[in-house]
Amino acid sequence: MTTRRVFLAAAALPAFLLALPVLAQQQANRNRVVMQVSDNDPGKWNLALNNATNIQKELGMDDVDVEIVVYGPGIGMLKAGSPVAPRISSALTNGVKVVACENTMAGMHLQKSDMLPDIGYVPAGVVELMKKQQQGWAYVRP
Amino acid sequence: MTTRRVFLAAAALPAFLLALPVLAQQQANRNRVVMQVSDNDPGKWNLALNNATNIQKELGMDDVDVEIVVYGPGIGMLKAGSPVAPRISSALTNGVKVVACENTMAGMHLQKSDMLPDIGYVPAGVVELMKKQQQGWAYVRP
Amino acid sequence: MTTRRVFLAAAALPAFLLALPVLAQQQANRNRVVMQVSDNDPGKWNLALNNATNIQKELGMDDVDVEIVVYGPGIGMLKAGSPVAPRISSALTNGVKVVACENTMAGMHLQKSDMLPDIGYVPAGVVELMKKQQQGWAYVRP
Repeated sequence: MTTRRVFLAAAALPAFLLALPVLAQQQANRNRVVMQVSDNDPGKWNLALNNATNIQKELGMDDVDVEIVVYGPGIGMLKAGSPVAPRISSALTNGVKVVACENTMAGMHLQKSDMLPDIGYVPAGVVELMKKQQQGWAYVRP
Repeated sequence: MTTRRVFLAAAALPAFLLALPVLAQQQANRNRVVMQVSDNDPGKWNLALNNATNIQKELGMDDVDVEIVVYGPGIGMLKAGSPVAPRISSALTNGVKVVACENTMAGMHLQKSDMLPDIGYVPAGVVELMKKQQQGWAYVRP
Repeated sequence: MTTRRVFLAAAALPAFLLALPVLAQQQANRNRVVMQVSDNDPGKWNLALNNATNIQKELGMDDVDVEIVVYGPGIGMLKAGSPVAPRISSALTNGVKVVACENTMAGMHLQKSDMLPDIGYVPAGVVELMKKQQQGWAYVRP
């Protein structure tokens, strides 16, 4: 092994490994927020939707990921006939992700056909809130 | 110093140091969630307990740490005679940690003998919520 | 290049790069908490102020950064004549940062002259909550 090869081998290993946290950091610096809706309160539903709009307006629609997780007593926000149905539709058009908790739906005997169109679903809303935070998303409960 | 020794010395230092963030990352990837109960509202107490159950069901009881921090106007959840006493007992049996805020208790002249058995205590509920997040726990306020 | 130089060059590079995450970690370990006030509920306003006081008492006034972000239906907390005006003044004196959301103020036709003295302002309360969390602050919604 020549001296030059020693230098390259010793320098290359840490450079590769150091790239991992740097990449993780860049990912963490992306603006991402998960919002919780779990109250049976249309005022809170509107506040969550206002928050989503303000976040997109402030940071740029393409520069932030916004997800609204709806579960427990908040599930009415996403049922067909919800008083905020037009605003949900408009949020989805603007790239906001809106997901309903399947645990809550099962407990309330709700089928996907009972819900607003085009929303997403997660097995457990509260686990979704955990996982997003573990991936570096900010959490806001309006 | 031989060429081989140079390689080993130069490579060993960063390998050791790099292990620290990797270990921290593994620790951060453990599923851990701290839940806040600070409302005088049995509906919220039940929702927090439902959330704890769903988290354990979804992720596996041994694969997630769940702690419920009770303080302020929520403290009634943990007083002897609480309407959710049987559910607290069952959550404790299932490995959920449930802690009461001693600041709140002092303000309301509550002794440990006034509280449900087997719960834990922290000096300040809000500081517990901060510290857990700083250690990488997710935060949920049901 | 001598053998010794190889050792120094190979060791110096990762040592420098490794310092970056270490510094970031130290910054992350500083006690910092951002609190959200978005309810039109003086009980919640007092709870937030109690929380701020308890955090400073527990951790030491100089050893923790506390910021209260007020927006949406909570904005009345910071209007001139607010029922908690004396407590806000005292929190500011103790180094708590208190900021109002300019989006909310615009929506309610509020000027800075309508607000309590010495508070701060942010363009969008919810974006402030996101950004602080991305910088490693804990989040508490009293």
